[in-house]
Amino acid sequence: MTFQEKLLQRTKSINDILYACLPEETGNAKSLYEACNYSILAGGKRIRPMLVLETYQLFLPNSSDEQRVVLHAFLSAIEFIHTYSLVHDDLPAMDNDMLRRGKPTTHAAYGEAMGILAGDALLTYAFEIISSAIASIDLFDNKNYQPSSEKFMQAAVRAMALFSNKSGMYGMIKGQVIDMEYTETYSSTGSDNKYEDSSKKKIDLPVLLEMYENKTSALLEASMLSGAILGGATKDELSVVDRLSRKLGLAFQICDDILDVEGSEEKIGKPVHSDDKNKKNTYVVLAGIENAKKMAEALTNECLELLDQLPGEKSFLKELFMFLLKREY
Amino acid sequence: MTFQEKLLQRTKSINDILYACLPEETGNAKSLYEACNYSILAGGKRIRPMLVLETYQLFLPNSSDEQRVVLHAFLSAIEFIHTYSLVHDDLPAMDNDMLRRGKPTTHAAYGEAMGILAGDALLTYAFEIISSAIASIDLFDNKNYQPSSEKFMQAAVRAMALFSNKSGMYGMIKGQVIDMEYTETYSSTGSDNKYEDSSKKKIDLPVLLEMYENKTSALLEASMLSGAILGGATKDELSVVDRLSRKLGLAFQICDDILDVEGSEEKIGKPVHSDDKNKKNTYVVLAGIENAKKMAEALTNECLELLDQLPGEKSFLKELFMFLLKREY
Repeated sequence: MTFQEKLLQRTKSINDILYACLPEETGNAKSLYEACNYSILAGGKRIRPMLVLETYQLFLPNSSDEQRVVLHAFLSAIEFIHTYSLVHDDLPAMDNDMLRRGKPTTHAAYGEAMGILAGDALLTYAFEIISSAIASIDLFDNKNYQPSSEKFMQAAVRAMALFSNKSGMYGMIKGQVIDMEYTETYSSTGSDNKYEDSSKKKIDLPVLLEMYENKTSALLEASMLSGAILGGATKDELSVVDRLSRKLGLAFQICDDILDVEGSEEKIGKPVHSDDKNKKNTYVVLAGIENAKKMAEALTNECLELLDQLPGEKSFLKELFMFLLKREY
Repeated sequence: MTFQEKLLQRTKSINDILYACLPEETGNAKSLYEACNYSILAGGKRIRPMLVLETYQLFLPNSSDEQRVVLHAFLSAIEFIHTYSLVHDDLPAMDNDMLRRGKPTTHAAYGEAMGILAGDALLTYAFEIISSAIASIDLFDNKNYQPSSEKFMQAAVRAMALFSNKSGMYGMIKGQVIDMEYTETYSSTGSDNKYEDSSKKKIDLPVLLEMYENKTSALLEASMLSGAILGGATKDELSVVDRLSRKLGLAFQICDDILDVEGSEEKIGKPVHSDDKNKKNTYVVLAGIENAKKMAEALTNECLELLDQLPGEKSFLKELFMFLLKREY
């Protein structure tokens, strides 16, 4: 099987899990469920759930039914959180995007108020799915106490705490606010300093990296770390996964910046040169294209070295990293 | 001490707990933390956390330090969720309110994009606070397994599952969507049928009650039920709390409708006749003022009877119900 076939197969399995927990489109709040499902069904490669699953399987290739229920809840939850963030990002008060993957965005299709409420609902539902799954863990088998179930419940609660931290005000949302406050645009009105914009604070490389770490990395970190925690990784292994996922997130964003400059629309499936058009500060703008490429290369190598330190069958994850980081430029 | 003094004292203690977990206003996403804190510090009587605490204490008047940490997380979380719902409700695409309790609403003070993000952050933080607190439960005391800690962890996870359910697409958000789809306005353009509005579906009493059950009751139910679960209530006791909190929520909303017609602005501290001005369908509009009063009276009595079936010291809760349900009309 080629990598593309393996990827497609995995996306399909994840979609099966994801679709199984979508709400029924019925009752007096039918339109809410339609808007939520519309947002999820708009597609995507499901990279984040895939990272949860693949990292989990490094540590625990064979799960019990009970473990699988909780794992599947985390897979679905991370995609719900990612999707809610896109739905809210697209709102008129935010990026004001009317199209995503060639289809009307949620607020374009269902109205602005529903865009806000559907995003809120997806976010809340993510935590509902996880906590209900954890609540279903049975600590007693025929009235005998099960230490392994208890250990798994503790791990799942820790993973949930990490999850909410990475998606909230100290993670993804923090990144969005830094983006909004600092980097939206740079001025091109003939000023000597092309990054000067009276309405925005001036960004430098450390702040840009802090923005990337939160806006892009945080959910990728949440994915790999929650997979590792659920899989029972040791403290040392978690530390490797932590460093690895941070580097992966950063590399992923820098590659995205490079692609926007050097990629072609047919190959990457979205408009190129959008950063330049939007006068958006990126790593390429601040550090230069050659440095960006060197940085992406170095980070990719570090990711692969860190991956080698982890146990389990890593061949697909390695290919997935290469796919995420070396895409067509 | 008068009831008003007791209420004030409790609000103050809850504020101490709440303020202790507010984010520091520092770093590159400072504005986000300011907006979040602004929304929380805007005040309120903290009825929902008070219901968590008072219900909990019916069942478990003396807590261990560990239990208190988790309890306090739930107190704070319910107020964060209530506050996020107000912040998003006030947005231009929703109710477009510029003032709340005499102060600019969050989006009026910080901009629309920040209103969206601060709401998202408060919601996510609610789950972060709860799950971190549950994750801190130590199941082993000097390496000895503690069944009571484990039982408490299980209860806390169940309470969190209920919490997210009641605030999400099958609870509060469902109610908001029904409100949006059905009841926003009735036409007053001389039509014989004063409830006819071409842009909205016609509402009847069952749908209105479903809307109240979700939009208003759901968070009150979440408060009392999570308090009871954390306090270790039995199945039968939970069933009483469930019925009680539903009736309380419904009575609370109907009293609010009555007050809007018959109250005075000085006494209730907010503008009256707003429903009529907004041509909003309410229980008073659909059932008539006399039936509304009878219904409120009956529900209040049922609440007090159900409360009597619960254990513990109930005198403050009784006064609180009377305060919530018999306010100045």
